[in-house]
Parts: sequence; C-alpha cells; structure tokens
Amino acid sequence: MSKFLKEGYASLAPYVPGEQPKEKKYIKLNTNESPFPPSMRAQTLAKAELEKLMLYPDPDCKALTKAIAKRYEVGDNQVIVNNGSDETLYFAFLAYCDEKRPAVFLDITYGFYQVFADMVGCPSVKIPLNADFSVPVDELKKANGTIFLANPNAPTGLVLSLDKIEEIVAADRERVVVVDEAYVDFGAESSVKLLKKYDNLLVTQTFSKSRSLAGARLGFGIAGAEIIADLQRIKYSTNPYNVNRTTAAAGLGAIEDEAYFQANCQKIIDSRTWAKAQLESLGFTCTDSKANFLFAKSDRIGGEALYLALKDAGVLVRHFKTERIKDYNRITVGSQEEMQVLIDKIKTILEARK
Amino acid sequence: MSKFLKEGYASLAPYVPGEQPKEKKYIKLNTNESPFPPSMRAQTLAKAELEKLMLYPDPDCKALTKAIAKRYEVGDNQVIVNNGSDETLYFAFLAYCDEKRPAVFLDITYGFYQVFADMVGCPSVKIPLNADFSVPVDELKKANGTIFLANPNAPTGLVLSLDKIEEIVAADRERVVVVDEAYVDFGAESSVKLLKKYDNLLVTQTFSKSRSLAGARLGFGIAGAEIIADLQRIKYSTNPYNVNRTTAAAGLGAIEDEAYFQANCQKIIDSRTWAKAQLESLGFTCTDSKANFLFAKSDRIGGEALYLALKDAGVLVRHFKTERIKDYNRITVGSQEEMQVLIDKIKTILEARK
Repeated sequence: MSKFLKEGYASLAPYVPGEQPKEKKYIKLNTNESPFPPSMRAQTLAKAELEKLMLYPDPDCKALTKAIAKRYEVGDNQVIVNNGSDETLYFAFLAYCDEKRPAVFLDITYGFYQVFADMVGCPSVKIPLNADFSVPVDELKKANGTIFLANPNAPTGLVLSLDKIEEIVAADRERVVVVDEAYVDFGAESSVKLLKKYDNLLVTQTFSKSRSLAGARLGFGIAGAEIIADLQRIKYSTNPYNVNRTTAAAGLGAIEDEAYFQANCQKIIDSRTWAKAQLESLGFTCTDSKANFLFAKSDRIGGEALYLALKDAGVLVRHFKTERIKDYNRITVGSQEEMQVLIDKIKTILEARK
Repeated sequence: MSKFLKEGYASLAPYVPGEQPKEKKYIKLNTNESPFPPSMRAQTLAKAELEKLMLYPDPDCKALTKAIAKRYEVGDNQVIVNNGSDETLYFAFLAYCDEKRPAVFLDITYGFYQVFADMVGCPSVKIPLNADFSVPVDELKKANGTIFLANPNAPTGLVLSLDKIEEIVAADRERVVVVDEAYVDFGAESSVKLLKKYDNLLVTQTFSKSRSLAGARLGFGIAGAEIIADLQRIKYSTNPYNVNRTTAAAGLGAIEDEAYFQANCQKIIDSRTWAKAQLESLGFTCTDSKANFLFAKSDRIGGEALYLALKDAGVLVRHFKTERIKDYNRITVGSQEEMQVLIDKIKTILEARK
C-alpha cells in the first residue's frame, strides 16, 4: 500500500476468491464452477471473433442483449450485460447505497456484499438468518436501505419462495431490492416474473455457473428500464467496453443452446440428489440446497478437519471460518464421477478416524 | 434514469465512444484501432482457452503479468493487468483523487478523464494547452492534485519528452503522476524507465492499439510495488476476475510475438509519414503526431464539413466539437491501402468544392 492511497481504502478487506492451486491436480469442488465444457455453439461463435479482436466490441452488446431479453421475456431495454455478476452488483451498490441507504443483507450470504459496501463507503446492516438458516422475511420487510438477497442463498443453498420475495419487494416500493440469482437455474424460481409489477427490483444472473462460462466473465441484470438506464450510466462512466468480443459471442452461443443448458442443469440436480443421499447415509446433515453445491456438516468430523483431510486426499471443497457455519463445508456439485470420488474419500477419512 | 439513483450520478455525462455503425461498410479511421489482425500466437493461445471457459481465470493473471514484467524490465509486483486501459485509469482516479487532491489534466486530452473525475466525485482542474497544443510544463509542475497526462496526447498526437515528464514527476514527490501511454508504441519514449527513480509515477498502457487487441479489452499499469498494491486492492474489492481467460491468453501471445508487434508499429509509422505528406501537399496543417492517428485541418474545408463529406464517401474519421479543435479531424492511421483511399476521397471532396 502506498502513502498516496485515499483514506478509507486503506482499511478495505478485499474479497478472497476460492483457492486455485497450481501445484497439484485436485478435483475442484470449491468454486461452484460447472464440470461441463461450454456449449459447442458458444465455443464456435467465440472462435470466430478471434481474428477480429483488433476491433472494439459493441459496447451495447446488442446481439447478446436481445437474446437474453428474448429468453427471459423482457424488453431489450430491461437488460444490461456486464463483466461478471460481480460487476452488476457493484454498480447497484454504487447507484443505490449511500449514507441514508445502507446496504442490507443477511449475516450468512455471499461474502462480496460486505466488500462492496466498504468499497462504496456506505453503512451496512447485517440481518441474522434464523437458527435453521432460513431467511427472516419480516426483518427484511421492515429494513431501511437497499436490500441484497441471494436466492438461492450462498453458502446455504436455501431458496426463498417467490411469494416471500414479492412480500419483501412490495413492503416498501421506495426502496430497491436486488435479487442475486447466481444459482437460480439449479432449482429456484426466478424473480424476473415479478418485474411486470415492480420497478424497485433488480435481478442479477451470471453465465458462470449453469452456462459453463466462469472463465469468460459474463453476467447480466434484468430490471425495469429505468434501473437499467441507471446501471448503463455507471457503465458508460467507468468502462463502456467492459464485455469483450469473445465473451459476448460465447454468451450468445450459450443462450442459443437451450437444450445443452437444460441437460446440464438436470445432471447437476441429479448428482446433487445422489450425493446428498450418500452424505446423509454417512451421518451428515445437509441443508436443502437448490444450488450447484451442497452445504454439509457431520458430528463425526469438524468442518475444518474434513476440509483439510479432503484437500490432502486431492479434493478441494470450501470451508468458511465464520462462527455460525464453521462446522460446515460447501461442496460444489461436479460431475457424477467427481461426486463418487468425493463420497469414497469421505468414507475413507471417516473410517480412519474410528 | 430511476428515482432511486444516487444523488450526484444523475448529472453524469458518460463517455461517448466513437461511432460503430452497423448499416454500411465504412473504412473505419475513427477509433484508433489497428488495421492488422492480432498475432497468430495470440489467436492460438486464446483459442486453446475456449474449451476451458467453465473454469474461473487466474485473478492474478500470473503468466501474463510475468511476461509484461519481463518485457518492460520491471518486477512482477510492479504490474497490474486490467479490463482495458480505462479500468486502470479509473482505479487511479478512485485511489488518488479526493476533495483535497483534484484530478489535474489538460483542456485538450482524452475525454474520459473528466468523466472519471465526475464519477469519483472529485474536483478537476483543466490546464489549457499552449496555443500550438504543446504542454505547459511549468503549469503542471506547480499544479496541486493528481496529474493525468496522455503521452502522446490525444487527439493532438504530440509527445512530451522524457526529461519534461521527469521534471513534472520530480517537482512534487508527494503527488501521483499518471502517464497514459495508450499510443506510446508509435513513436514516443515510455516513462517506465523513470520508475527506477520515482515512486509517485504510474504508467498505463493498452493492448488495444499497437497489439491489435481492442476487442479483447486488456490494459496494464506499471509503477512501484506500492502503487500497484493500491490498485490490486481496488481490483480485489470490485471485480477480481476482471480479465477473462481468452483475453489473458491472447495478451500473453501478443507479448511473446515481439517481431509482429514491431513490424506493425513500423508499418503504421510509415503510413503515417506518407499520409501526413499527402495531406500537407493538399494544403492541410497537421500536428507532429507520434500516435497511430493524424490530427489535421485545412483552410479549404471546415472540420465538421470534412468529417461529414468523408462519412458520405464511406470513410469514418473522428471530429470533436470542442471549440479549440473544431477545425480539426482525428484520422486513425489504417493500412496503406486505407490511407490511399482516404487521400483519394479527400482530393475528390476538395475538387468538388472548387
């Protein structure tokens, strides 16, 4: 850090991404990536851009925007595409959080919300999840500020039903509610359909998980045209060309290949069901996750001990040291083969501790 | 714009990128893109990433960072790669501009500096270029704030010599000077060599121009390790994965293909020399541009009139309505064939007005 850095940024605690070790070949079940390659259509369209990379991309990403709008049955002016879901979320913090409007989020949720609040310099209000990790809906309805709600939530994987989300959005229409749907495609209902009724709602989604494009960096927001115009204003005042040519093309290909997307989501759901049953038969307690990860703990081994033992056995999962969830691990649902290895390794680890 | 948008952002005047018309096939000499495709090495490395796009990129971009550090003879911890030069510049505005440290830049320069200042909410001080568009070095030496200096400057193309830049950097070592070298490879000397002596200097460069990767979105900053640590802190607090897999790979390929880079720069320099002589023989006045564009005016036709006539004839150049430079056009140096067409069209236009 230099002596020149602006006051306030010196105390920032930046986000820590899941580890990406280079030294050893791990089965990576720690960053919620898809085990499946991008759609061939996505790869083909992206490849065609490579020889054109000397030309700037279309800053509006018109073709991709249109395709997303059509897929989600909204107007073209209700969509913004950005460099990952994180960028859309950051823009929302910039646009809608300030001294009078704290960022409101749950105590156990996506860790970046706190970082964004600190970066923007707004106050934040953390609302504790109930003891069973369910969302205290009445608390959110009453909260003053801009609400950031991951649905399904991370790392619990728990879903809030659409009628509960509507209650929160409707409770105060002078307040923006951001629903972060990074994991929605694996079993939750999207809040996009609420946009017909509410102009204080922003839904964010990503191509990183269900569409196998974490490495391309592509996310989008869907909202009323006015909220999208706000976010476009911020985009054009910071980095208008934030989405590059290959990524925009890959995104278009991924949207066009609906069958591949649906098949992959179903495979993840099936493997999740299988792995959850296996873990439970080994005595684990799992939340009812509707995301592409499981959230599991065992009386037979501590959260950190299991994380370390699995790492030693060549399987990476994600462990958080936060007090309320330190007994758990978040385990990405990979391919069926990977989940079989995971279960085998856990059996061996538990066996050795008898 | 929504009623929810934060006060202060409502009055933002976002950057307006050069027009990218879709309807008609133009010769595009308006956004300073390279006329040459990316290096084959860049394309090959990028292509190899496409099937791996389901995996997150390395947020540190270690391979690319190392290659840039080696190429510019600095330490790995003196380099940050970002999603275009604009993003590095924006981070510098965030890190080093505030109420007490206005953003200081020239009245005629890259238009985004004013937008960044407005976005960050810091005051800005515009220092007028001299009548001949040369930089008033003494004014910059005295200025209080954080200095943003494009070298070569845009849209004039004029270069400030390294000893003058050193004077500005040395004049006040408690102040950060950012030298924006987007166009440096076409004939200016890089300030990177000053980094051995000064820790208050940040040099930004881009892959968009001389390395034919405008469509990939890749830029980098070089500075002392402490300034780079500041910018990394901001990157990891906003969007750690800002550079995607294909772009990082394309950048690595471009850096590795030094011969192609050098040959393309030389071609642009040769075509610039040729086109400038042609324009002068037609009575144009051109600045002594060392960038990949010419900045030219004529007593025989106004700046906007020439812009419109060329557009009508299928050639796009960039005209700015700013009072001091409204007689000029900024003309990207394309391929030799494109410059031949440009000159032919201008001859026809001037002929028709006789």
